[in-house]
Amino acid sequence: MAKFLTSREENYSQWYNDLVIKADLAENSAVRGCMVIKPYGYSIWEKMQSVLDKMFKDTGHLNAYFPLFIPKSFLSREAAHVEGFAKECAVVTHYRLKNDPDKKGIIVDPEAKLEEELIVRPTSETIIWNTYKNWIQSYRDLPILVNQWANVVRWEMRTRLFLRTTEFLWQEGHTAHATEEEAQEEAIKILNIYVDLAENYLSLPVIKGDKTESEKFPGAVNTYTFEALMQDGKALQAGTSHFLGQNFAKAFDVKYQTKEGKLDYVWATSWGVTTRLIGALIMAHSDDKGLVLPPKLAPFQVVIVPIYKNKDELAKVSEKAIEIRKKLLAKNISVKFDDRDTFKPGFKFAEYELKGVPVRLAIGSRDLENNNIEIARRDTLEKKVYSQDNIEELIEKLLNEIQKNIYQKALNFRKNNTHVVDNYDEFKDILDKKGGFIYAHWDGTAESEEKIKNETMATIRCIPLDSKEEHGKCIYSGKPSNKRVLFARSY
Amino acid sequence: MAKFLTSREENYSQWYNDLVIKADLAENSAVRGCMVIKPYGYSIWEKMQSVLDKMFKDTGHLNAYFPLFIPKSFLSREAAHVEGFAKECAVVTHYRLKNDPDKKGIIVDPEAKLEEELIVRPTSETIIWNTYKNWIQSYRDLPILVNQWANVVRWEMRTRLFLRTTEFLWQEGHTAHATEEEAQEEAIKILNIYVDLAENYLSLPVIKGDKTESEKFPGAVNTYTFEALMQDGKALQAGTSHFLGQNFAKAFDVKYQTKEGKLDYVWATSWGVTTRLIGALIMAHSDDKGLVLPPKLAPFQVVIVPIYKNKDELAKVSEKAIEIRKKLLAKNISVKFDDRDTFKPGFKFAEYELKGVPVRLAIGSRDLENNNIEIARRDTLEKKVYSQDNIEELIEKLLNEIQKNIYQKALNFRKNNTHVVDNYDEFKDILDKKGGFIYAHWDGTAESEEKIKNETMATIRCIPLDSKEEHGKCIYSGKPSNKRVLFARSY
Repeated sequence: MAKFLTSREENYSQWYNDLVIKADLAENSAVRGCMVIKPYGYSIWEKMQSVLDKMFKDTGHLNAYFPLFIPKSFLSREAAHVEGFAKECAVVTHYRLKNDPDKKGIIVDPEAKLEEELIVRPTSETIIWNTYKNWIQSYRDLPILVNQWANVVRWEMRTRLFLRTTEFLWQEGHTAHATEEEAQEEAIKILNIYVDLAENYLSLPVIKGDKTESEKFPGAVNTYTFEALMQDGKALQAGTSHFLGQNFAKAFDVKYQTKEGKLDYVWATSWGVTTRLIGALIMAHSDDKGLVLPPKLAPFQVVIVPIYKNKDELAKVSEKAIEIRKKLLAKNISVKFDDRDTFKPGFKFAEYELKGVPVRLAIGSRDLENNNIEIARRDTLEKKVYSQDNIEELIEKLLNEIQKNIYQKALNFRKNNTHVVDNYDEFKDILDKKGGFIYAHWDGTAESEEKIKNETMATIRCIPLDSKEEHGKCIYSGKPSNKRVLFARSY
Repeated sequence: MAKFLTSREENYSQWYNDLVIKADLAENSAVRGCMVIKPYGYSIWEKMQSVLDKMFKDTGHLNAYFPLFIPKSFLSREAAHVEGFAKECAVVTHYRLKNDPDKKGIIVDPEAKLEEELIVRPTSETIIWNTYKNWIQSYRDLPILVNQWANVVRWEMRTRLFLRTTEFLWQEGHTAHATEEEAQEEAIKILNIYVDLAENYLSLPVIKGDKTESEKFPGAVNTYTFEALMQDGKALQAGTSHFLGQNFAKAFDVKYQTKEGKLDYVWATSWGVTTRLIGALIMAHSDDKGLVLPPKLAPFQVVIVPIYKNKDELAKVSEKAIEIRKKLLAKNISVKFDDRDTFKPGFKFAEYELKGVPVRLAIGSRDLENNNIEIARRDTLEKKVYSQDNIEELIEKLLNEIQKNIYQKALNFRKNNTHVVDNYDEFKDILDKKGGFIYAHWDGTAESEEKIKNETMATIRCIPLDSKEEHGKCIYSGKPSNKRVLFARSY
């Protein structure tokens, strides 16, 4: 097994990068900041997509598709939006290449310059609200509950596989409503769908909350976020759901006739999660031996490795392995039987530990005689020999247990790394020595938030939705505060 | 019902455009040549995706994702490929916008010019083969059977919704093999998967064949195509599967060590179908009243329209309708119950004819008394009253019958519009007066092909795979030919 990882303790960031590449999840491409998502990594994304897509459809949302390109002028329509998104983006200026008259190769044809440049979408609010203008006349046309699965491009200067890439994959929902209340409810409904995905599929405990004014989406009234804690004590924003108020309706002049016959601007939400979730999954659970994947998102949940000395033994063991695979498949458990004769069992064991397969079965000639099988679980690295009787039921239970155990482990980690702090020195000390989540009082001003950020690199991850009323003093200014907010350094 | 269509006879092209827009499938966007695929249209695409994706996976293919952008220089690596694709494409030259110092709005930052321009992928052979170079060392790494679902951009001058758009959605498979034979088999295997999709899901009879040298994919050795006949007598290329030989392996220097320890270039295929298939579906089956959708791809297969005079009647009818819906859902039949009270039944009937819902059920108070229900099928426009007993089984059978009937109708149309022609005058006469498919002899030269194309606007759609040996004379040059090829005017 030549694929050693840097350990987390030695260099967490290097460990992450090694793991993504060595576990065959993704790699950097020839285009700066753009990644290639390899089949093993893409399969995890497909599983997340399928879970989310069903949740969206079950709550009345439909998929659609809007253009990749946005006319430059559209970005300027919403004042806050242009500040946030019209900076680092890919700009299409020409629509033709031609043969270089001087030498071999091709050049951009200077005569094929676009009258108005096109921006590769960094997010689609503007092109979508320009479209909704024609879809909405009356309250009867509302709500519009639309989602799209798409690629987007933000020209990031410092990129990391999955966590921050120039191009990434995501879903973006864009809804239109007749009332403020309904739009607010929608934003929260989606937030809860995301939390369901995170906690019950990614096994990732998260804190739901509101972003502060400075951290919210450019163009939103409110941004709801859900924040997870990584093993190095840094927070990761896993996704966001925005209540956009009437901002985009005003920017694109989208009015509807109310039941009472009046004209009013439409209320909106938008929301998205991205391939970054794969980064969160990796960082939250994996260890120095490789990936640890929750069974519900693992490309395959069980691998069977045959142990044999010769072809005869392999034939006999294979027969049994295929029988077991059938039983597992009948229970909707995905299984790979690895009968490659080019690698030894020990190599395969390490390979599947690296790839985070939740359950590994090993079966050899002696096991056949004794009706036994060895089961190894990836999360705890425990190995034990069981009878082959009703093995499929045992494994079904085990997969559920692993799913829960990974969640519980992450939850314990978060508990052990969450601090309630009342003064700024302690705040800085914890950030430097331990990291983690810090609940502290804040005076509600952008000034204190900014100063804390500049001095400590910690930001307000969110104002937790379940934050209790509690009188205290801002750790920075000493001014009064009536609830704690969640601070952390973050990705 | 205000949504009248132009009739096919009056103006086929206008009929198509009206239909796409009025049936809520797609519309033009603010970006020239790019369409918005609306939920009803996108749902058809999702159904095609899900069928194809399963077929690909069942034959060992995995999904992955490669970058949207291709460095300009990559396009020049394969000599034929650059001629075909490095012409009309979207070119990213800058990566930043900034506020216009002179006036309101934003401008492209001249300081953020890319060193090498990026092309928005028109197809991904180059970026993928540049990646495969690192994935392939030995025969053990082969085959690679990878597909991606993605958007691509080709800067088309004349666009039509679904049929030819600047941006479109597609899947593109890119496989790598150790032997020529295996790659050839793969190209044919995929062609057959596509034909299965066309005939058994789109209800679209197709002719499989080889493209001529002039019509093949730039960079391919062979291009396999499948061609369908539209109702206006024009052919439509529904998708292609390419045997690429070692062309891209040579262009990107991808060699592998054979079992015998030698180094050889890798063999390749690529293949794709696009959202154009939705255009084919519409053009092949629909009529002057609207869409006719094969049940297997319809967003919903059955609609129930209640007939009532007052709220009481509606309540009673709804109860029965919901009961019927349940029974249908239990059989995996998708159903919409349209109880909107803002529209009359007659309006709804026309609406669902326009939208091509395969089966429409109508149920009123008198039907409740008599245990009856009215069933209307979209393909034949027949209406008939049935007993409600075992209605779900009746409808299940009916949906299968409709699926087959739509295919049979299209097949009959093709038979009636396929001509075997032996001289050039008759050839031109049929093209002008009837259109359709024409089987004729061709001398195999690009010159005759080109002349025929220029003089008649007909192209060789393919050299059919099942073409029999038959001695004859080229309709253009009179030179000898040993099989007929398929000519048509086309989309």
